[in-house]
Amino acid sequence: MASIFTKIINGELPCYKVFEDDQSISFLALDQVTRGHTLVVPKAEVDHWVDVPEEIFLKVQSNAQKIAKAVQKYTEAPRILTATIGFEVPHFHLHLVPGKKLADLDFTKGKRLPAEEMEKIQKGIISFLKSE
Amino acid sequence: MASIFTKIINGELPCYKVFEDDQSISFLALDQVTRGHTLVVPKAEVDHWVDVPEEIFLKVQSNAQKIAKAVQKYTEAPRILTATIGFEVPHFHLHLVPGKKLADLDFTKGKRLPAEEMEKIQKGIISFLKSE
Repeated sequence: MASIFTKIINGELPCYKVFEDDQSISFLALDQVTRGHTLVVPKAEVDHWVDVPEEIFLKVQSNAQKIAKAVQKYTEAPRILTATIGFEVPHFHLHLVPGKKLADLDFTKGKRLPAEEMEKIQKGIISFLKSE
Repeated sequence: MASIFTKIINGELPCYKVFEDDQSISFLALDQVTRGHTLVVPKAEVDHWVDVPEEIFLKVQSNAQKIAKAVQKYTEAPRILTATIGFEVPHFHLHLVPGKKLADLDFTKGKRLPAEEMEKIQKGIISFLKSE
């Protein structure tokens, strides 16, 4: 069965997309661990990141650097924390979490934000991506 | 002042090294969050990962995939979790944490292991890296 991320990639489910190229997509995490929490996901559906073909994996990482810079500029967070976990969705996704302290990387704290707030974050990140 | 990791790279401080090439080094985390917790570090001393030159950053990520496979084989963990945080040592380092569940990615749980245990883990990971 297609993962929830493959459904997003195929346009069967909506997302707050901030970036897309031929091999990857990036959108806001539905449960925002901190404001601006963004995922970078390869279009190829591979569960564990160690098994993602190297070319695709490095494309995700390269895009992650560019997207994280935009997330940081928009959120004004001192750092962008990253994590790969994967116990929920079996489709590799790199978390970018704006952070001020270690305790910000707490995935039990994810929460839904109102649609207008998500759209505002999405537009903010995209505006900084475009100005790179 | 040189970071603790630059001192390790320069041989001024010891470490349980599992891998090294011209641009990066990998060694066991002194405080093991779970058994087999390993760091991958570029030799270039850059604080925030978003600022690491892309070529070096991607070399670290490429090596991380290879090292994580060896860590996983040795520890027999279902997944290798990753994280970049950086509030303690201002020198980018990617954490590889063998994990069975989300709660394993808890950096407050790091603990020192006896030297003989660290050496055993180091040798185990190296043996799987060599057999790749």
